[in-house]
Amino acid sequence: MPHDTPAGRVLLVGAGPGPADLLTVRALRAVETAGALLYDALVSDEVVALAPQTCVRIRTGKRAGAASMPQDAINRLMLRLARRGLTVVRLKGGDPAIFGRVGEEKAYLTAHGVETEIIPGITAASAAAAQFGFPLTHRGEARRLLISTATIGKGARPEDGWAAAADPQTTLALYMGRDQVEAIAARLIALGRPSDTPAIAVENAGHPEARAIPARLDKLADAVITAAPTGPVVILIGEVASQADAAIDLAPRRAQQIAS
Amino acid sequence: MPHDTPAGRVLLVGAGPGPADLLTVRALRAVETAGALLYDALVSDEVVALAPQTCVRIRTGKRAGAASMPQDAINRLMLRLARRGLTVVRLKGGDPAIFGRVGEEKAYLTAHGVETEIIPGITAASAAAAQFGFPLTHRGEARRLLISTATIGKGARPEDGWAAAADPQTTLALYMGRDQVEAIAARLIALGRPSDTPAIAVENAGHPEARAIPARLDKLADAVITAAPTGPVVILIGEVASQADAAIDLAPRRAQQIAS
Repeated sequence: MPHDTPAGRVLLVGAGPGPADLLTVRALRAVETAGALLYDALVSDEVVALAPQTCVRIRTGKRAGAASMPQDAINRLMLRLARRGLTVVRLKGGDPAIFGRVGEEKAYLTAHGVETEIIPGITAASAAAAQFGFPLTHRGEARRLLISTATIGKGARPEDGWAAAADPQTTLALYMGRDQVEAIAARLIALGRPSDTPAIAVENAGHPEARAIPARLDKLADAVITAAPTGPVVILIGEVASQADAAIDLAPRRAQQIAS
Repeated sequence: MPHDTPAGRVLLVGAGPGPADLLTVRALRAVETAGALLYDALVSDEVVALAPQTCVRIRTGKRAGAASMPQDAINRLMLRLARRGLTVVRLKGGDPAIFGRVGEEKAYLTAHGVETEIIPGITAASAAAAQFGFPLTHRGEARRLLISTATIGKGARPEDGWAAAADPQTTLALYMGRDQVEAIAARLIALGRPSDTPAIAVENAGHPEARAIPARLDKLADAVITAAPTGPVVILIGEVASQADAAIDLAPRRAQQIAS
């Protein structure tokens, strides 16, 4: 790198669930001053539009059938742009530390001498809970929150950490689970989670057009098939789901519990 | 309520980890237009200062030995202020859905006919990870994130959901655990978590004066006692902790793993 080139850096930034006002103020400032913006498929157009006119904008994630950029190509691109002296903003839906590959990207950049900074974002579970008015933990009935991908259907064994999924006091937040609801529900019930456990699948959590699909655990797969979501879905399973504004059909169970 | 009183409402808002620029833009706007602000001990002075001059400010959480307001008193106060027609902002450190009692407060307000809205916030685990440069999940070594209070030391049994804590692919984020590190570590090791599991205790996560205390699991209690934190502490346990910028003494283990 020639001596007169200013050192660029890479900000690994959480874009949150989609709406621009659910960015943190720090993330908003990063986007507004970006020299280059590399963004995943889950980052909304509204957020991308906040970057300056002069900003190089590169979509790295697949949308509508187009291919995703391979991770090593993303890494090399960030490096090249930073070495041009640009402030590179690497925008990821949600929180970059949660299923955002921020560890891999940071390790690569650090190994190549590029300074990085991580800016956190609102993760989908928090966005879904806020939007539909339910908590993720609740005194006496939901002491823990387990955030996981929905790989439970693909041969995951209980000893692979799924034992906790059966615990009635653990709220499960399953990411990327749209097409695995039936396997997930069957697995959880087999592990001992009651079949009438409240659950809610949230499509496009945080977006104005978000949709909540509430159902008891053993009916969730049917409810999701009927609703036929096309956007990303986060699945929340646990007593807290009965507190959701949309959970009208789960309310009698809750009322019963309170009365007993 | 007289007919000419405008209906107030209550916004249940996540204040994030402390710095004002880690509020979401939506939360910032809520604070800036609050008619009344009720805030917990973990909400920073910097955030409280953003409320308008005319705003009623009430601290509900204990600081420096002063007593906390009981939950039912907080509930009644929010109700009274909303019935005066004010926009009440109930500010909680972190994300209100995670250990924030938002379910209880919303249920009370809804039962009394007061409109509520929840605005999410950055939770301590995300803040700590971003600030010290490590992920909470990592492909192939940390598939899940379990967020829990640190009640493990107080007689919690493995069947109470703690079985997952032993899973090597689960990152643990333990809140409110400053005084229970020794019991937590002993318990996890007894449950089968390797004693050299990387861990990091973060005091005042997200604040400029935050402090990271990295150590392997069996040395964490000693490291925390030596560091003597006085602020709130979030404890992260799992392979990801070795990626923290502060985890110099954990690095050889990681390098070894990568080499093998």
